[in-house]
Amino acid sequence: MRIAVLGTGMVGRAIAARATERGHEVTVGTRDVAATRAGDWTGWAAAHPQVALAGHADAAREAELVVNAISGAGSLPALTAVGEENLAGKVLLDIANPLDFGKGFPPTLSVLNDDSLGERIQRAFPRTRVVKALNTLTADLMAHPRQLADGDHTVFVSGDDPDAKKAVTELLTDFGHTDVIDLGDITTARGTEMLLPLWLRLYGRLGTGNFNIKIVR
Amino acid sequence: MRIAVLGTGMVGRAIAARATERGHEVTVGTRDVAATRAGDWTGWAAAHPQVALAGHADAAREAELVVNAISGAGSLPALTAVGEENLAGKVLLDIANPLDFGKGFPPTLSVLNDDSLGERIQRAFPRTRVVKALNTLTADLMAHPRQLADGDHTVFVSGDDPDAKKAVTELLTDFGHTDVIDLGDITTARGTEMLLPLWLRLYGRLGTGNFNIKIVR
Repeated sequence: MRIAVLGTGMVGRAIAARATERGHEVTVGTRDVAATRAGDWTGWAAAHPQVALAGHADAAREAELVVNAISGAGSLPALTAVGEENLAGKVLLDIANPLDFGKGFPPTLSVLNDDSLGERIQRAFPRTRVVKALNTLTADLMAHPRQLADGDHTVFVSGDDPDAKKAVTELLTDFGHTDVIDLGDITTARGTEMLLPLWLRLYGRLGTGNFNIKIVR
Repeated sequence: MRIAVLGTGMVGRAIAARATERGHEVTVGTRDVAATRAGDWTGWAAAHPQVALAGHADAAREAELVVNAISGAGSLPALTAVGEENLAGKVLLDIANPLDFGKGFPPTLSVLNDDSLGERIQRAFPRTRVVKALNTLTADLMAHPRQLADGDHTVFVSGDDPDAKKAVTELLTDFGHTDVIDLGDITTARGTEMLLPLWLRLYGRLGTGNFNIKIVR
């Protein structure tokens, strides 16, 4: 499958590398290709020669599935740069969390309770099939879940389009996730985004991001 | 230990019955003793003859540990009825969640993000040692955690007083909890209260409240 991963940070790199490893054709999207190449991208790219780099719109244009691995604050601007036509009809796997670092650590959420970033993106791009997933665990475990307890932990999908959720669930399963719970429509993204305050405190308490929640039932 | 459990609902009954079973001396507090006796309390009380019933203030006066098992909206009014003197120096195990059912189901939260109900209670009763705990799972599993996966799941404590957290942790362990994570000070209650939106969606999706989260690490 042709996948565009928007975002060159830890999450974008982890997803791009893993999807390539699983046989997908991956282009990473960035706001400014020259600026990204001038940073530490070059070393990472040398270790991942199959991953292409392009501007956001060029990365997404031919993709079947687009991954939003941009920060919460940067998500809507980046998707706007991609353009509605380049996202129409496509599955958008939204991993971002609306974290607000304006008041220090731990960050608060800038969207919550009766709305979510996932819903905002879905409203802004009504022809795109948004699926919120993977925003509840650290980048390395998103991509390599079997590294922790042989994958015996849980991830979630939220979205309005059953086929889009199926496509994302297949990708997650291919990455090694063993327990993917379909929470329901995109409004259920409120629940997973609002898990972040607990996640951040656990991160501080455990001294590592190498943990995940399991829904024991 | 002398324990007062404020609240005659499912949570209050589950905690009162279990604490009695574990050898504690339990009085349940209610706003109106006559009204409670006129309801379905009588049948439950007949099955639990060791559990006493009293007004909020009378229940808490001689207690060493007070449990807030009142609804989120009712918590501060009930604690105010108990009175600051009757709570001074005591451990207050706060189980309540600030759920707002005003907009239908699922409820939103009336306090969140940069505050929590746990913190509000601590600010209102500065001489009381508030510990937020057990607000992340269903009443039956609060009291009988071994019923699910032999207790292989997680609960949390948040609070400013280490000795108070120790006392609550001992009570939880005595109930059968095997994994109690101390998240830190009372501000960490934001994290567990904000877990509720995910919990409520899982409840809808799984069709049962008989589940809990486990922090896999």
